[in-house]
Amino acid sequence: MRSLKNRPTMAERRHLTDAGMVLAPGSMIGIFGGGQLGRMLALAAAPLGLKCHIYCPDPQSPAFDVAAARTIAAYDDEGALDRFAGSLDVVTYEFENIDLAAVERLAKTVPVRPGARALAVAQDRLAEKTFLQDAGIAVAPFAAVDCLAGLENAVAAIGRPAVLKTRRLGYDGKGQTPITKDTDLDGALQEVGGAASIVEGFIDFTKEVSVIAVRGADGATACYDVAENVHREHILHTSTVPAAILPETATDARRIAEHIMTTLDYVGVLGVEFFVTEVDGRESLLVNEIAPRVHNSGHWTQDACAVSQFENHIRAVAGWPLGPTGRHADAVMTNLIGAEADAWAALAADTAARLHLYGKNETRPGRKMGHVNRLSSRT
Amino acid sequence: MRSLKNRPTMAERRHLTDAGMVLAPGSMIGIFGGGQLGRMLALAAAPLGLKCHIYCPDPQSPAFDVAAARTIAAYDDEGALDRFAGSLDVVTYEFENIDLAAVERLAKTVPVRPGARALAVAQDRLAEKTFLQDAGIAVAPFAAVDCLAGLENAVAAIGRPAVLKTRRLGYDGKGQTPITKDTDLDGALQEVGGAASIVEGFIDFTKEVSVIAVRGADGATACYDVAENVHREHILHTSTVPAAILPETATDARRIAEHIMTTLDYVGVLGVEFFVTEVDGRESLLVNEIAPRVHNSGHWTQDACAVSQFENHIRAVAGWPLGPTGRHADAVMTNLIGAEADAWAALAADTAARLHLYGKNETRPGRKMGHVNRLSSRT
Repeated sequence: MRSLKNRPTMAERRHLTDAGMVLAPGSMIGIFGGGQLGRMLALAAAPLGLKCHIYCPDPQSPAFDVAAARTIAAYDDEGALDRFAGSLDVVTYEFENIDLAAVERLAKTVPVRPGARALAVAQDRLAEKTFLQDAGIAVAPFAAVDCLAGLENAVAAIGRPAVLKTRRLGYDGKGQTPITKDTDLDGALQEVGGAASIVEGFIDFTKEVSVIAVRGADGATACYDVAENVHREHILHTSTVPAAILPETATDARRIAEHIMTTLDYVGVLGVEFFVTEVDGRESLLVNEIAPRVHNSGHWTQDACAVSQFENHIRAVAGWPLGPTGRHADAVMTNLIGAEADAWAALAADTAARLHLYGKNETRPGRKMGHVNRLSSRT
Repeated sequence: MRSLKNRPTMAERRHLTDAGMVLAPGSMIGIFGGGQLGRMLALAAAPLGLKCHIYCPDPQSPAFDVAAARTIAAYDDEGALDRFAGSLDVVTYEFENIDLAAVERLAKTVPVRPGARALAVAQDRLAEKTFLQDAGIAVAPFAAVDCLAGLENAVAAIGRPAVLKTRRLGYDGKGQTPITKDTDLDGALQEVGGAASIVEGFIDFTKEVSVIAVRGADGATACYDVAENVHREHILHTSTVPAAILPETATDARRIAEHIMTTLDYVGVLGVEFFVTEVDGRESLLVNEIAPRVHNSGHWTQDACAVSQFENHIRAVAGWPLGPTGRHADAVMTNLIGAEADAWAALAADTAARLHLYGKNETRPGRKMGHVNRLSSRT
């Protein structure tokens, strides 16, 4: 145990991190990205006495309003990256589509958590599916596509219906297009910009669920209860806990998430999205995708749990022991997309609604503006 | 209901405030004082989409680390006060010993909540006791003291034992001295610096309890459950909820707190400290003092309630409807004073302890460095 009074120097603190020690209160955590996830991470770090330095090119970043330090610079600004790294004890990120060169530059100076391997896997759908398959985890059938001939072969192998998805930079349904019975493959390839892609077999799922898992620097793992997710126009609409799945399915989902974290030697919160399929009353799980960060489907933990996904991510990257992941209530999280956040006054007056607004200064269609958690007695 | 997109201008927002309307997300709340209370207010404002501007002369203020805007200036710097007021939609404060001239200067430009009357009453023990007595609320017997002859008369009237307290600037036991059977009155007056004072009769209390109450701009009132407080060396050590008092005593405490708020036309959170006395199994309450702000004995609400005292204070001063004050757990709050916060690593590893550190960069004896909340099943 270290005294706050005789706090180690930054160089000493960094050494402690490398040695698996915990970061003392007063340490600085860098967060790459200044959106709502970075903002909620910073809000969770403060009660632990940990400071946050947000790096984001957008001067209007919502996370800047709650952070001890701010860097407004492009993600490939080497001078700014070096100054950022020099101010930190550890660095984490709120989105996975970071240039790996920037991460490697930061990693020369300061520990990056979760690590570069998790990022490399999560940035590329082909690498992700291959990693999961190699780890013995069920995924939808898939095949890589680089050109029209490749697409034709892939669709022949996997069959229709299927989905064509770019390997990189896809989120909220962007960069993907369905391949049905009549789809013209040349047109589909143009639809995704002719980029390196994969074809995935269409999964006739009954439910989408997710697990928010966390792994500490000491290798300890924990999971929150499984959430059932409903999307609208490819954007998460609600997450409900507990999910209406069989107990053994929930156990499987948690076991898979923990297996992924251990295999990646992961540190931090990991979001794992699953498809649930059902045959003759038996449920099976396929991993849809993984997110190496705090995840929208875990926002319910802010109000239903003693320790939220945000606090547990901060604990993990700071080398602290994980906090408990139990919940004291059932919960439904509802995203406020675009103009839905204009209902803030009604939501503020709803005693059952816990409101979380992101402080974004402009409402745009499809933009995540906030969310609401509603709790009920634990079932 | 107002759109986030077509947000009113600052002048429009201010008009709305004056008219009793609610401040829209994106509005700026000024907080006078940058200590832990200001910090926790800012952390509670963020999820409501409200920004905070902290005013404090200390460049190391813990609240600066979580606020959208900061002013480092003396509390009597008129230029800084005017610029501060000009940036705000409403202003509140984290401590009651503010120069009323500064508050009046701010109030010319921006609503001040709670109002100047509550401050005037809370700043002066004589005004406070007189106000409470006039409102029909039981207090310890008291008398004003301006000189040695006055002190002699007061002690003759009230009897020994008693306590001599300065009228202004007393907190955590500072500015007070006991008067026992043998106390030399001249020495006692010198002990408190010869300042304008009051003598209070010594109360043989069995318990100290407090109520955290809140009143909205619409006049709605609510109270959290009564906490039982234990002090060590005149500094709050623990607050335990529920307090071990009779149900009718708890009802009385809440009723008194609501009566005080209504009488003062108060807006915001009010802390009311009581002595509990007991005769033949019957409990009685005397108000010890009131604090026109969030209060240390209400920190348990952060983890045991859906809406904390900090969120409810922000809701009130922003003109929002109050949030629910119910609790889902029993709680014990323990302050971390001085070097006690050096135990942070053990507390971080204690899964039953919810840690709240204040980010202060120097540990000093008697300084409040953080607190810990421990929850248990609701009784």
